[in-house]
Amino acid sequence: MLKILRINTRTREYRFEDLGDYAGLGGRALTSRMVGREVPADCHPLSAANKLVMAGGILACTNAANSGRTSVGAKSPLTGGIKESNVGGQFAHKLPKLGLLAVVFEDKPATDAPFVTVLVKKDSVEFLDAADIVGKCNYAAHDVLKARFGEKVVTALVGPAGEQCLMASNIQFSDPDGRPSRSAGRGGLGAVMGSKKIKAVVLDPEAKDAVEMADPEKFKVARKRWTDILMGHPVTSQGLPTYGTAILVNIINEAGALPTKNFRTGRFDGAQKISGETMTETIKARKGAYKHGCHTGCVIQCSQVYNDKNGEYLTTGFEYETIWGFGANLLIDDLDDIAIMDRTCDEIGLDTIEMANTMAMAMEAGLVPWGDSKGAINLLKKVGTSDPLGRILGNGTVFTAQAFGVDRVPVVKNQALPAYDPRAVKGVGVTYSTTTMGADHTAGYAVCQNILKVGGDVDNLGKAGQVEISKNLQVATAAVDSLGLCLFVAFAVLDTPDALQVIADMVSGLIGKPYSVDDIVGLGVNCLKDELAFNRGAGFTKEHDQLPAFFRNEPLPPHNTIWDFTAEEMQAAKVG
Amino acid sequence: MLKILRINTRTREYRFEDLGDYAGLGGRALTSRMVGREVPADCHPLSAANKLVMAGGILACTNAANSGRTSVGAKSPLTGGIKESNVGGQFAHKLPKLGLLAVVFEDKPATDAPFVTVLVKKDSVEFLDAADIVGKCNYAAHDVLKARFGEKVVTALVGPAGEQCLMASNIQFSDPDGRPSRSAGRGGLGAVMGSKKIKAVVLDPEAKDAVEMADPEKFKVARKRWTDILMGHPVTSQGLPTYGTAILVNIINEAGALPTKNFRTGRFDGAQKISGETMTETIKARKGAYKHGCHTGCVIQCSQVYNDKNGEYLTTGFEYETIWGFGANLLIDDLDDIAIMDRTCDEIGLDTIEMANTMAMAMEAGLVPWGDSKGAINLLKKVGTSDPLGRILGNGTVFTAQAFGVDRVPVVKNQALPAYDPRAVKGVGVTYSTTTMGADHTAGYAVCQNILKVGGDVDNLGKAGQVEISKNLQVATAAVDSLGLCLFVAFAVLDTPDALQVIADMVSGLIGKPYSVDDIVGLGVNCLKDELAFNRGAGFTKEHDQLPAFFRNEPLPPHNTIWDFTAEEMQAAKVG
Repeated sequence: MLKILRINTRTREYRFEDLGDYAGLGGRALTSRMVGREVPADCHPLSAANKLVMAGGILACTNAANSGRTSVGAKSPLTGGIKESNVGGQFAHKLPKLGLLAVVFEDKPATDAPFVTVLVKKDSVEFLDAADIVGKCNYAAHDVLKARFGEKVVTALVGPAGEQCLMASNIQFSDPDGRPSRSAGRGGLGAVMGSKKIKAVVLDPEAKDAVEMADPEKFKVARKRWTDILMGHPVTSQGLPTYGTAILVNIINEAGALPTKNFRTGRFDGAQKISGETMTETIKARKGAYKHGCHTGCVIQCSQVYNDKNGEYLTTGFEYETIWGFGANLLIDDLDDIAIMDRTCDEIGLDTIEMANTMAMAMEAGLVPWGDSKGAINLLKKVGTSDPLGRILGNGTVFTAQAFGVDRVPVVKNQALPAYDPRAVKGVGVTYSTTTMGADHTAGYAVCQNILKVGGDVDNLGKAGQVEISKNLQVATAAVDSLGLCLFVAFAVLDTPDALQVIADMVSGLIGKPYSVDDIVGLGVNCLKDELAFNRGAGFTKEHDQLPAFFRNEPLPPHNTIWDFTAEEMQAAKVG
Repeated sequence: MLKILRINTRTREYRFEDLGDYAGLGGRALTSRMVGREVPADCHPLSAANKLVMAGGILACTNAANSGRTSVGAKSPLTGGIKESNVGGQFAHKLPKLGLLAVVFEDKPATDAPFVTVLVKKDSVEFLDAADIVGKCNYAAHDVLKARFGEKVVTALVGPAGEQCLMASNIQFSDPDGRPSRSAGRGGLGAVMGSKKIKAVVLDPEAKDAVEMADPEKFKVARKRWTDILMGHPVTSQGLPTYGTAILVNIINEAGALPTKNFRTGRFDGAQKISGETMTETIKARKGAYKHGCHTGCVIQCSQVYNDKNGEYLTTGFEYETIWGFGANLLIDDLDDIAIMDRTCDEIGLDTIEMANTMAMAMEAGLVPWGDSKGAINLLKKVGTSDPLGRILGNGTVFTAQAFGVDRVPVVKNQALPAYDPRAVKGVGVTYSTTTMGADHTAGYAVCQNILKVGGDVDNLGKAGQVEISKNLQVATAAVDSLGLCLFVAFAVLDTPDALQVIADMVSGLIGKPYSVDDIVGLGVNCLKDELAFNRGAGFTKEHDQLPAFFRNEPLPPHNTIWDFTAEEMQAAKVG
């Protein structure tokens, strides 16, 4: 049986615990249950009472396709509510090789205590001096750790932003190529890690434990069918591998839902120049890679290696959200400059969605002109330095807006909106408004039914059906995040009648007990209930389930629709 | 009948309206009713939807003693809830001379529109170019306005902090000596004024309308008795005039409730050096004034003129809260340096309580050492400049704590705590927790019963009776603020059986209709109900009626008591 490793960051004591009440959980279901039970909802997110949980999903100990996502949980410094930040990379598959389902960081050292590197080995934990990497950006820090622990070392790092406990700071996880490129981006969890004075978590690369399947044959059959399902759907086998998520730029722009100039219009003149098609052409010309997986066992391969003009590696995990945020939303159409901003965020340890919206606030305030990519890059690079402006920007969208008196601030629960204007993709607007996470497209990706027509067909501009699809997607997503599967499996799952049963069969094969589709649904529902309970304790009401007033007052061209849901109507999107 | 003047700051249209539904209200009851009805609770505080209301109290049109307080209302940029910020100065008594009960500023101009000076005359409003005062600190700006409009000009000003829409910015009102020394301090209302691009509001000094008493004889008799009540109580006739509010330094220190070093202990070694007694001696030696009124008609005279070592004017309205905040709470015992910080806040346009706590956050973060008064002054002076650090500090306590990762943040509803540690004055802790205003001692000053033993005797360290006295005080305070009376009349009112009836008789004499003590209570209750309804709409729940966790976890020396009320217990302190 896998264990939970608890590490006290103040006393440096640790213990390996049986799962106990947490048995049967994994990923988000585990982090949210644990945060809900063990963290006082009204504590300061940077105080000793907060905990940082890193967990693999239920299927992380298997070789099921796309089962290597890691859930990072805590009370969020950004939203003040519960947070599960979901990330690729090698971490989740490495944990079971150490006999672990999760690592929990508790308490905190004195503010002036030195940063440490926490080395997790099979039966022990070492607190190592982090002087060799403190203050370093993530790629350089990871290089130091590779030199120290070997090329295959698996790491979770905070950059200078996390060291400063800034609210837009993320945690960067290492990928199969030995780069710290994968971001547990949202909600400022890098600040929680920084507050506990952890610069790096290192998983012993030598660990090789295997978890036995209770019913290997059942698992094997289901696993095979699972791979076939993913490889048989056009989105997961062709669209995403060829163009990455940036395939959405032209699609969402065409739909009139690409937020442009801080959510002023739904179409961007420069869309073609920053599209997935342009990206793939550019990658091919520069001998990068347009098919690339963020973790071992990924068959979708939506990632890529994006090289600069000289053919040198520039970035990877270059997502639609990032391209939209530093692109259309800032009136920037230079894909290379956007790639530099993506890399800069990965280096400093910043959430790209939060920072892209932050840059929009900086442009609203006149710090740099709209469309000025070089100016935006210069601003970004201030974060993590001693410049107080960097502290403002690194604390995110609302903070920057407050610092400069900007009143047009696209956030829900203090977290900045992603790349779909809710006035033109109303289903995702319901998700933004009601998810426990603050504005988050991944929490219930109604773009499927609203725009892509996967898993249903609901008019993106109308209200009918939106609450229902968002609610169902939120439950399904919580389950997917708990299983440790990549969310993109949903494209195939939604269109494949036996897919959920196949997933249930994989779990059943692993645990050797019956596992049903209802169990999967229950996993999602209970996870959301845990999260909602925490958020109520943190002071959230239905009044927080609403978009900022400007979405209700300003029609969005070209469709000239407004956001016309009340907070009351939103309540039906929440479980329980 | 008095009118309400509505001014659209974008179109520059204005109109003088009958009171209509607002008849019978004044001061806080009026501002809170108006904000509650006319401002969407979920709007951005700096958006066009917010309104800034400046109102005299019900008795402002009379010459009743201490009836010249002004209520400034809006949705607070700092708390996100409703705000009434209460201030002395000449404004409230001047409004009726213009035939006005209140002025309401609506809508907002473009962000890049120039600042204006709004000149309010008897039957007209002029929007004047404010280029002569933009960027100026308040004393210099007021001097320019005096040169332009005459020595007796009555003004309300934002300083550089308000121009930048910072959340700790206040509105400074001019006093009887022609200085802009009185602060509508709390809640960041200067930012609302700044967002509407108003640098100054000027009331025509020539206006001389008199409001007729409906029953002059009744009013006259009651008014005489009212003055006698105030002049007959030792606190209002001797304590406050002789030592100002700083008389509390030694009293609260002795009680073990003087928050020291960011609320770590309740006693400060340097208390004597910053006490009211020391202040009065200093003032006498430097030929200042220790009896001084903040508005015409004040008989309590708790203000003072504090001169520097050379006998030159340094500051006035030098309150206990300010002396505590920049003194004990920062381990500073140099009264002159504290006076410089008071003046600096008045110049830049900043709330001293918010900024004192902000400086504590800066010291927690190591920006300057504890006790370093010169360092604190230098930091303060950055606010309102182009230095981004000034934007951080000027946005207050929580903002500064977030910028620098400080987790020990003494606030309720995002507003910083005043000068009484709630663990040792539990009645005022109930008020901090439950008032609609965010942490605010004036909203229900249970220090009376807990420490001063005025109006009752409730053990300051115990729980018994605290919720009840806080609730009663909150109702009484809302009524006092609505009548336009100075809160300090409460010392005499609480100890004088016929005082409330006398106040009711003054109102009755003014309006020529019966007015009862029950009507006064109703005024307070309804005001609080309006405010609570607004805050519910803004998303506040009982979870927000609580002190930060460190007050519950850390015993306060010397009594070693903790804050031991639950949010649930707090609910009984709220009306309705």
